[in-house]
Amino acid sequence: MRQLRIEDLDDLATGAAVLGTGGGGNPYRGKLMAELAMRETGPVTVLEPDELDDDALVIPVWNIGAPVCSMERIHKGDEGLRALRALEKFLGRQVAAVSPVEVGGSNSTLPLRVAAQTGLPVVDCDGMGRAYPEVHMVTATLFGVPVTPGTVVDAAGNCVYLETADNEEAERLARVVCVQMGGTASMAAFSMSARQLREAMIPGTLRLAQRIGGTIRQARRSHTDPVQATLEITGGLRLFEGKIVDVERRVTRGWAKGHYDVQGKDEVLRVDFQNEFLIARTLAGRVLCTVPDLIAAVDTQTGEPITTENLRYGYRVTVLGIPCDRRWRTPEGIALGGPGHFGYEGSYVPVEERVN
Amino acid sequence: MRQLRIEDLDDLATGAAVLGTGGGGNPYRGKLMAELAMRETGPVTVLEPDELDDDALVIPVWNIGAPVCSMERIHKGDEGLRALRALEKFLGRQVAAVSPVEVGGSNSTLPLRVAAQTGLPVVDCDGMGRAYPEVHMVTATLFGVPVTPGTVVDAAGNCVYLETADNEEAERLARVVCVQMGGTASMAAFSMSARQLREAMIPGTLRLAQRIGGTIRQARRSHTDPVQATLEITGGLRLFEGKIVDVERRVTRGWAKGHYDVQGKDEVLRVDFQNEFLIARTLAGRVLCTVPDLIAAVDTQTGEPITTENLRYGYRVTVLGIPCDRRWRTPEGIALGGPGHFGYEGSYVPVEERVN
Repeated sequence: MRQLRIEDLDDLATGAAVLGTGGGGNPYRGKLMAELAMRETGPVTVLEPDELDDDALVIPVWNIGAPVCSMERIHKGDEGLRALRALEKFLGRQVAAVSPVEVGGSNSTLPLRVAAQTGLPVVDCDGMGRAYPEVHMVTATLFGVPVTPGTVVDAAGNCVYLETADNEEAERLARVVCVQMGGTASMAAFSMSARQLREAMIPGTLRLAQRIGGTIRQARRSHTDPVQATLEITGGLRLFEGKIVDVERRVTRGWAKGHYDVQGKDEVLRVDFQNEFLIARTLAGRVLCTVPDLIAAVDTQTGEPITTENLRYGYRVTVLGIPCDRRWRTPEGIALGGPGHFGYEGSYVPVEERVN
Repeated sequence: MRQLRIEDLDDLATGAAVLGTGGGGNPYRGKLMAELAMRETGPVTVLEPDELDDDALVIPVWNIGAPVCSMERIHKGDEGLRALRALEKFLGRQVAAVSPVEVGGSNSTLPLRVAAQTGLPVVDCDGMGRAYPEVHMVTATLFGVPVTPGTVVDAAGNCVYLETADNEEAERLARVVCVQMGGTASMAAFSMSARQLREAMIPGTLRLAQRIGGTIRQARRSHTDPVQATLEITGGLRLFEGKIVDVERRVTRGWAKGHYDVQGKDEVLRVDFQNEFLIARTLAGRVLCTVPDLIAAVDTQTGEPITTENLRYGYRVTVLGIPCDRRWRTPEGIALGGPGHFGYEGSYVPVEERVN
């Protein structure tokens, strides 16, 4: 058990933006929202997964939609809370703790906001060790945890409860509901017991995000290379360095989809995204990294991660490849979160085998 | 209280197709589905609104979507039942009776199917005295009854519960959910007490539909004009007679939208539809009838009503205008169900003033 304070949020948000691989919601907005709640109620209690009773009910809360939309249609602030309370009521059970479903972007800090609003603890874990664009792309799916019952809530006062035949149906229905709600909404779903959580979720990812953010901050302060520091702490690899020369981004069917091109010394790297960065390959066709491994774009000078909605012409970036959690490297994990899921041909090859 | 038997279904389906103004779901399919259930369980009890205790809970059940889709994606048969049971569970209350929300098409017989499946009575009423394409276009909306909590259920085993800020939001969210479910689904919503029902719904419309169907059948048997008989029983007016020479119909955003043209002796009549027939006007621009009044297309020889999905080149049709229920002729009723709601310019003029 530990306390997470307002002063910890900067590091957490920075680290979560690295792990968010471009998505997971805008980390700056997420940080402000958590800070706002914590200013009123003080620090949030963070539990390790094994600090909960086996049967304790844990409900992950997160935002769904295109980060671009969430920047234009600011959340009211109680969406996550209302999603949680509605699901609790639906289940007829009291929740013992909330958790992130993805450690990326603002979805690492939304559970802190809800925790501050409710006094509930947050479990230090997530269901990806990264961010993914679809509701069912969570390690819990691999371990048979159903997404639903789940709730989708918007700022206008609407709440949609889903009970679906399977986890893919939950994604399809939540997506059209979210689009109708303006392209951004809050969800509570994947409710599970602490026993299930210990098997089905990835422990310690909030702590990892904080450590990554802290390392980047300290490297900048001590005038050492923040990018190198990030690589060391994540086990990541330097894939490409250059200047962003093209960004194509459109909001379609509830996601920000597109690509950006990075002009290097001799070649151009193209990174495709659907909220998150999916594949990094040169225009000549050499693939450097694909999902489920993490692709991060960081400012070459400051080490600051750059999310999908902040990609701009002219940024000097370093593109990193970070090995994903082992749960994604099983055949089932690759089927759910690998390149084939997004329509890319070719088998998944771990980034360290591609680059070294 | 009376019993509705399988032998009554033909007349009911025919009359409901007249009142359905082209929509409300395919009456033939709806009749077969009700018959199937009643074969197993016998007749269904039909109650008058004043036969229920004031506080008795009534839940309308209906199908949402484009009738065209429901012909291609046949319902499993338990969608309405599951929608009802899910809403009951959500409300934590036992339902005393079901009711139609619209008397048109298969939505007049779906409640009979659910009644046969559950042993519940059906209340003889509906919320339109016709059919309308959108969820909130119900007289109950005019009397402040909220659509939600409500449920949307599909054949694949999905159930979506809605709690919305207002009745228009319920339409928007139910629509995208229905489209994602394949363009056809079953709903239970607009739950109300019998006290509310007596104020907010239109009584006796199932009986009216049966009488219309019976009149058409008897006229055919006695070789008198079935169209004339329909006009007499509904207070309707003969608007136009001719041959269908053009049908444009596309399924878009969950509805069958388009128009059909009827070549008369001297002019061509065009009828626009969105599931239901919205406006009948000559190509020269003379408006003969608009919503909320009912526009029906019937076979000139047999008097059989023709629904949107059955419109075909070559049909000899008579287009009828039938005055709507008085609840639609208030300023609020016209705002909710009048031509302006569908984007047509010009004020609503009652059909009997336009034609006489």
